[in-house]
Amino acid sequence: MNSTIEAILQHRSIRHFTEQKIEDEKLELILRCANAASSSSFMQCCSIIRVSLPDVRAKLAELAGGQTYVESASEFLVFCADFNRHQQIHPDAQLGFTEQTLIGAIDTGIMGQNALLAAESLGLGGVYIGGIRNNPQQVTELLGLPKHVLPLFGMCLGYSAKLPEVKPRLPLSIVVHQERYQNLDKQELEQYDQHIKMYYASRSRNNRQTSWSEQITATLNKESRPFMQGYIEGQGFSLK
Amino acid sequence: MNSTIEAILQHRSIRHFTEQKIEDEKLELILRCANAASSSSFMQCCSIIRVSLPDVRAKLAELAGGQTYVESASEFLVFCADFNRHQQIHPDAQLGFTEQTLIGAIDTGIMGQNALLAAESLGLGGVYIGGIRNNPQQVTELLGLPKHVLPLFGMCLGYSAKLPEVKPRLPLSIVVHQERYQNLDKQELEQYDQHIKMYYASRSRNNRQTSWSEQITATLNKESRPFMQGYIEGQGFSLK
Repeated sequence: MNSTIEAILQHRSIRHFTEQKIEDEKLELILRCANAASSSSFMQCCSIIRVSLPDVRAKLAELAGGQTYVESASEFLVFCADFNRHQQIHPDAQLGFTEQTLIGAIDTGIMGQNALLAAESLGLGGVYIGGIRNNPQQVTELLGLPKHVLPLFGMCLGYSAKLPEVKPRLPLSIVVHQERYQNLDKQELEQYDQHIKMYYASRSRNNRQTSWSEQITATLNKESRPFMQGYIEGQGFSLK
Repeated sequence: MNSTIEAILQHRSIRHFTEQKIEDEKLELILRCANAASSSSFMQCCSIIRVSLPDVRAKLAELAGGQTYVESASEFLVFCADFNRHQQIHPDAQLGFTEQTLIGAIDTGIMGQNALLAAESLGLGGVYIGGIRNNPQQVTELLGLPKHVLPLFGMCLGYSAKLPEVKPRLPLSIVVHQERYQNLDKQELEQYDQHIKMYYASRSRNNRQTSWSEQITATLNKESRPFMQGYIEGQGFSLK
């Protein structure tokens, strides 16, 4: 155990922030850490849009489904897959491959996690905002994103006002498979469902009565942002 | 600055390992850290396949394009987006959305980076292996991956035998945009190209003469795994 591992294991999403601003030198470290991330084939195909203007923040909070902390957090960063940079360098670049969508999403996730962990190690908290994918076209216009740039997630960062409980994850025995893919052990799932039910019922905020299986069943009864395919193709991704 | 940030900023891909095995308790911590990652809508849609059998490792090394360290590293983990788990729980789950491919790739990237950083904080080194996407169908068969599981990248972990130089990244002024997307500053790019040219010419191994612009131009003159779209659709991803 060491302080990095402690920070990772203590992760919880922070949605309530104090009014204290993140110091410039801390923000600089967070961004440098984001930028130090591994990069597939050294493509460096990620960009970060830092949004500070209050009216743009308010609009993004609304577009993300009324997530007010997008407006109130000290910092809000939008992480994008970015192959526009490459096209500026090489106008005839072969773009539009599904593989590049995967690289972009994976590498942007890696970069985001470097940023979040750096922030957490500095005593800050944060949360990923997938809600910017609710209205990707409007986000694209608001941030002036050209073709070949895909806004994948936002991140709120700031000083935590409230520290929620750590949410229990699926057991490692379900997530980690030895040699070959193993089907779910229904007994372990049942135990986990009981565990998460107790967590939801007893946590300090936003209590509810649900197991993980019930929760994902409800989520997957609905379509999952069915406009996304058309949107990303319009941005020049996943065309072939 | 703190030890987490130092570890992040000191990251370099490790491809040469000593014969020392990773201790069980360290591996357990690494996997727990992977599992503590943020999860979009708490879908928990990632799985890790730990491959230990030498003949499977040898085959994966070959499939990844002759990357011998896939065989020789103490640990080799394959990180997958996994919605099969959800389908086992809810056979009528609505799957196949492009949005789920994005969530899967982003969340698996986040999880991978937790694992790599945990390993680095424990004095280990590692490298992402995107090369498992060279032959995804064969990897799928080798690991017994069912539909709705997508092998996204591998990761070699072990004790570093050689510590290469840290590779200079694009400057933050290019990667981070304020408020709106900004086009490349060609002068900054030119400076970075000179910088990376010096790095490649002077590094201790695998010297070469190339700028970043030249490198990405060469990469993007070629198709990028054009079979990927058909493969992931066959696995039940990005169909709508």
